[in-house]
Amino acid sequence: METELSRQLGIEHAIFGFTPFPEVAAAITRAGGFGVLGAVRYTDPDDLERDLDLLHRHADGKPYGLDVVMPAKKVEGVTEADVEAMIPEGHRGFVRDLLARHGVPELAEGETSGWRITGWMEEVARGQLDVAFDYPVKLLANALGSPPADVIARAHDHGVLVAALAGSARHARHHAEAGIDVVVAQGYEAGGHTGEIGTMVLVPEVVEAVAPLPVLAAGGIGSGEQAAAGLALGAQGVWLGSLWLTTEEADLHSEALTAKLLAAGSGDTVRSRALTGKPARQLRTEWTDAWDDPAGPGALPMPLQGLLVAEAVSRIQTYEVGALLGTPVGQIVGRMTGRRSVRAVVDDLTRGFERAVTRMNRIAGRSDT
Amino acid sequence: METELSRQLGIEHAIFGFTPFPEVAAAITRAGGFGVLGAVRYTDPDDLERDLDLLHRHADGKPYGLDVVMPAKKVEGVTEADVEAMIPEGHRGFVRDLLARHGVPELAEGETSGWRITGWMEEVARGQLDVAFDYPVKLLANALGSPPADVIARAHDHGVLVAALAGSARHARHHAEAGIDVVVAQGYEAGGHTGEIGTMVLVPEVVEAVAPLPVLAAGGIGSGEQAAAGLALGAQGVWLGSLWLTTEEADLHSEALTAKLLAAGSGDTVRSRALTGKPARQLRTEWTDAWDDPAGPGALPMPLQGLLVAEAVSRIQTYEVGALLGTPVGQIVGRMTGRRSVRAVVDDLTRGFERAVTRMNRIAGRSDT
Repeated sequence: METELSRQLGIEHAIFGFTPFPEVAAAITRAGGFGVLGAVRYTDPDDLERDLDLLHRHADGKPYGLDVVMPAKKVEGVTEADVEAMIPEGHRGFVRDLLARHGVPELAEGETSGWRITGWMEEVARGQLDVAFDYPVKLLANALGSPPADVIARAHDHGVLVAALAGSARHARHHAEAGIDVVVAQGYEAGGHTGEIGTMVLVPEVVEAVAPLPVLAAGGIGSGEQAAAGLALGAQGVWLGSLWLTTEEADLHSEALTAKLLAAGSGDTVRSRALTGKPARQLRTEWTDAWDDPAGPGALPMPLQGLLVAEAVSRIQTYEVGALLGTPVGQIVGRMTGRRSVRAVVDDLTRGFERAVTRMNRIAGRSDT
Repeated sequence: METELSRQLGIEHAIFGFTPFPEVAAAITRAGGFGVLGAVRYTDPDDLERDLDLLHRHADGKPYGLDVVMPAKKVEGVTEADVEAMIPEGHRGFVRDLLARHGVPELAEGETSGWRITGWMEEVARGQLDVAFDYPVKLLANALGSPPADVIARAHDHGVLVAALAGSARHARHHAEAGIDVVVAQGYEAGGHTGEIGTMVLVPEVVEAVAPLPVLAAGGIGSGEQAAAGLALGAQGVWLGSLWLTTEEADLHSEALTAKLLAAGSGDTVRSRALTGKPARQLRTEWTDAWDDPAGPGALPMPLQGLLVAEAVSRIQTYEVGALLGTPVGQIVGRMTGRRSVRAVVDDLTRGFERAVTRMNRIAGRSDT
């Protein structure tokens, strides 16, 4: 599965794997794909350094990337405390009541909220970049719009390609104008922040909007046939996030959550503002139902919602409270039915891709060579 | 673009075109695809006979199909008047106010509501079938679940394949158990009634659920590259509805509506219950906004909503009231930017498919033959 972009990056298969786990990212890279470590959970740059170190040591000298969450618009002098102060008391009460109704215990003394999502704050993301540029990261992806111009320039100085996620052709054009090198066209089916345009419609629109920039297809890709479809739409590679969550190398710190993912069907996710304030696809739970209920107070805008729910999500995860326990994941969760190694997943993707190409040739009446 | 199913039907390209216009269906068939005439708007069997006659005469002896809307569950002895009586007065007032606010004129004396959607009523659909079986229809599609067992048996007696639309693997399995021959897997991106699973995820799930039955991919397909993607997902053909609406052979009876379709982008549709009571993708208008507004009364369930709004929709269409003027259409409306002949559209689809296969072979490192 070789494209111009995969050749430029020196990888065997144009399969880009986004994951919060350094072991998974390393395994994707070792298997011939391109592992991309998600940095949003690293509040402390030292933790990121430790995990980038691990990733680097296990990557067998092959290339990998980093995904940060950095807003293009800088909000000067706003601290986390300022943002906290903007959260209405009614919403805090709603969280308290919801947790109480489900009997979710308090965190033990000294236990921190591991789910605290502060990586979206620019100073945190910049701290991550200071660490990242010490490693031979080959691609820097940004999940929230184009990164600031100086970050793009700094990446280019280091010979690092810059990628940005887009849910519409308009977004993608903004990225291209900002000097981005690669656009990840992420369709409605995808896990995490996602728009309303399906992958089938979005990818060719983005390809056309930013040509000749390379585009990666994301959203709904969990098999080699789906990868083939993404490439047929004009993409130079596929970007997968959900599929790795149930690999043997992934550590969700919760058997209950892993079991939920393995049992879920494609209809068991919802695009909800419950987690961050922006629509993000995730497992549908009583937690998302409560926030999506028109009779409730509704989710706050980003970044307020993320701060509001950080501790609650941490408690739900720590105590594995079944009815509320969820995670961002795409509609391909229905295909995640057993634990496999990253290597087995990548092999399955490339074999399925080959099968699809053989079938396409038959349909086109071409002898397959 | 040849598959087992296209060979079985004796067509050149596995391109299935659904359309309410007999001239368009005939042109699709003449161009080597398979035209399927949508019958839902024919209240009078004589009108259907006239249009099937036209389709037959213009099909050059090549095969075509018919799409009816027939609920599998029969509601005994319920008349249209019974259903009318179930519509709350508040909802009638909401329609009146909405039309008044936009200055929509009354229909002239004797003018009938052309948009009256009664084709979903079983006796109407059965009347359509009595006509259809006099023609060499090769495929009978049903948009609302599996048709009743006796209808499937009657079709099979006539050597007619039966197809049914499915928005989930569960639906598709029901169809297979009912004795259906072909499943149309219609994804979230599609125009008209549609579920929440994107085409990218839905098609392989349905293929697996009903194997070895053939599956057609629907939703988000408007180019040869998208057709290639649908086939890569395991489909034996593609099913397109929206793309034909702006062909030269189509007659929407409204230049304003055609202009709206040509101007709309992929983000200008909405999945709304405004038209029929079931979620159906259509152009987003002030009409859909009013019904989707949580502050409004909300749409009634099917079939009440269809009856409630029939005359209003007819008035909006007749007087081309811009802000309210819409139609069912999928997200590929963004690709419908100019009027072309059906032949040009089919040629574009097959050429794009060939391009995509060539590109796939290059990515797979196979010499293209």
